[in-house]
Amino acid sequence: MPSVGVVGATGAVGGVLLGILEERGLGEPRLFASARSAGTEIDGRPVEEATPGALAGAGVDVFFFAIGASASRELAPHAVRGGAVVLDKSSAWRMEPDVPLVVPEVNGERALEHQGIVAVPNCSTIPLTVVLEPLHEEAGLARVRVATYQSVSGAGRQRMEQLRATPSGNQDLAMDWDFDGEEFDEETKIREETRKIMELPELPVSATCVRVPVLVGHSEAIWIETQRPLSPERARELLSSAPGVRLDDFPTPGKAAGTDDVLVGRVRPDMAGNGLSLFLVCDNLRKGAALNAVQIAELLLAKASLAA
Amino acid sequence: MPSVGVVGATGAVGGVLLGILEERGLGEPRLFASARSAGTEIDGRPVEEATPGALAGAGVDVFFFAIGASASRELAPHAVRGGAVVLDKSSAWRMEPDVPLVVPEVNGERALEHQGIVAVPNCSTIPLTVVLEPLHEEAGLARVRVATYQSVSGAGRQRMEQLRATPSGNQDLAMDWDFDGEEFDEETKIREETRKIMELPELPVSATCVRVPVLVGHSEAIWIETQRPLSPERARELLSSAPGVRLDDFPTPGKAAGTDDVLVGRVRPDMAGNGLSLFLVCDNLRKGAALNAVQIAELLLAKASLAA
Repeated sequence: MPSVGVVGATGAVGGVLLGILEERGLGEPRLFASARSAGTEIDGRPVEEATPGALAGAGVDVFFFAIGASASRELAPHAVRGGAVVLDKSSAWRMEPDVPLVVPEVNGERALEHQGIVAVPNCSTIPLTVVLEPLHEEAGLARVRVATYQSVSGAGRQRMEQLRATPSGNQDLAMDWDFDGEEFDEETKIREETRKIMELPELPVSATCVRVPVLVGHSEAIWIETQRPLSPERARELLSSAPGVRLDDFPTPGKAAGTDDVLVGRVRPDMAGNGLSLFLVCDNLRKGAALNAVQIAELLLAKASLAA
Repeated sequence: MPSVGVVGATGAVGGVLLGILEERGLGEPRLFASARSAGTEIDGRPVEEATPGALAGAGVDVFFFAIGASASRELAPHAVRGGAVVLDKSSAWRMEPDVPLVVPEVNGERALEHQGIVAVPNCSTIPLTVVLEPLHEEAGLARVRVATYQSVSGAGRQRMEQLRATPSGNQDLAMDWDFDGEEFDEETKIREETRKIMELPELPVSATCVRVPVLVGHSEAIWIETQRPLSPERARELLSSAPGVRLDDFPTPGKAAGTDDVLVGRVRPDMAGNGLSLFLVCDNLRKGAALNAVQIAELLLAKASLAA
């Protein structure tokens, strides 16, 4: 049994991660968090402070990082120095050329090339690539346009509490990402990460990201054009047997929250072109974050046990 | 001063209509509603039952209909028989060849061709055409793709109460339209009505409609392709002087609710093609419904006073 650690155990993704590790029999992880949360307990287990020294000396085989990018940039090298593999949920390492960016259903084998860190993609990119990959293999992706309906849990535990505390009639849409003058960093991430994961460095991807007043579950309205013809019927057939995907006529966050699959439906001709239009929803805390990281750990551990 | 009547005075659009008529000095309308609401009062004025006979005999010049399609199909001919012009918000008459479907900023002159009924378009179609028209005049529209974020007030007063009564953390997206096996009637309406209003009967339009847990304000993420090049800078310039449009860097329903303009922003290159991507928000009860109807009435009344 490998020893496992969770850094950011008190956050929204951290909490879901602990549940998934228990569900999947990956043992009782050591728990780490920032100084602010260190000293508390989760289910009777102590939360330690995530300092460079504590992570380097922890003797942990696999560290799940569920913290922000700047903290990850500071701490991950120390965890790696201590001999651990870091599975990092932040955006800190995703576009580093020597860091694999992995969605197990799409490019799982890349995880094995790691040099200490494997990056977990953005919570909107993960379900998008899970759905696009089988369609690309069949028909060759030419263009992707996506409008997101992202839940507030993607912005962290504090925003979840804020949503719960605001009356339903006062909710608004939000666009709470960094803006570069042309698009949000979230939109850039979807394009760049999709290209890296699918190994299609020139794929044209246009994203419009919007935060909706929903607690959990990211939705995406997608239009694709393909190099070769792809009927809705054939696309549904491919998706029905694709790993990590479940067909649903009308996917909503309420149906997706708490489930592991990406729900995809509304697969139909693009009435404005020659491609397809489809709609997906994914639990952004599970497959969009924690579950994807645990699946990467399972890939690495399976390889290690084969090698042993 | 013309005599004015409102049929459906107790509904979500009806209430907003009464406020706009007062704001714009269009007098105190006679109020009508279904048998269920008839007999009540609004601001001390009686609500009469909207029967065929009552409407035909009302002696009203302009009737605003803010009721469902089947009631409108039944009642509008009687109002017309009594000598009134009916400005109808429902979908009952929109696609009838001899009924003008009017957005004053786009095809106002068509209202003058009416034969008793002028149809008010769908609440997502109105702001879409207001924004597309100046871009089309400049560059020629080739394709339109739109993902909507529609507020619950578009589904009526009862859904607004239901939203208010549901805790914020339990809200879900919804797709509460009729489904023909391929798309929602709402999506078909956006395509067919846009074609009719803009007089582009072959325009390729693909819509994905989603209901979001927001009280008022419909948002739309739009991608357009044009026949001639159109830069984001030029598009912003055109939109900044277009009637009924206000530029806003990051439009949200919270900013648009209660205002008359369509807010449009996020005008940028389509990173997946040669066109543009943009985002609009509109108060669906005002410009998306009641205000658009009142503007049509003003057009007709201005023409009548010129003719008199």
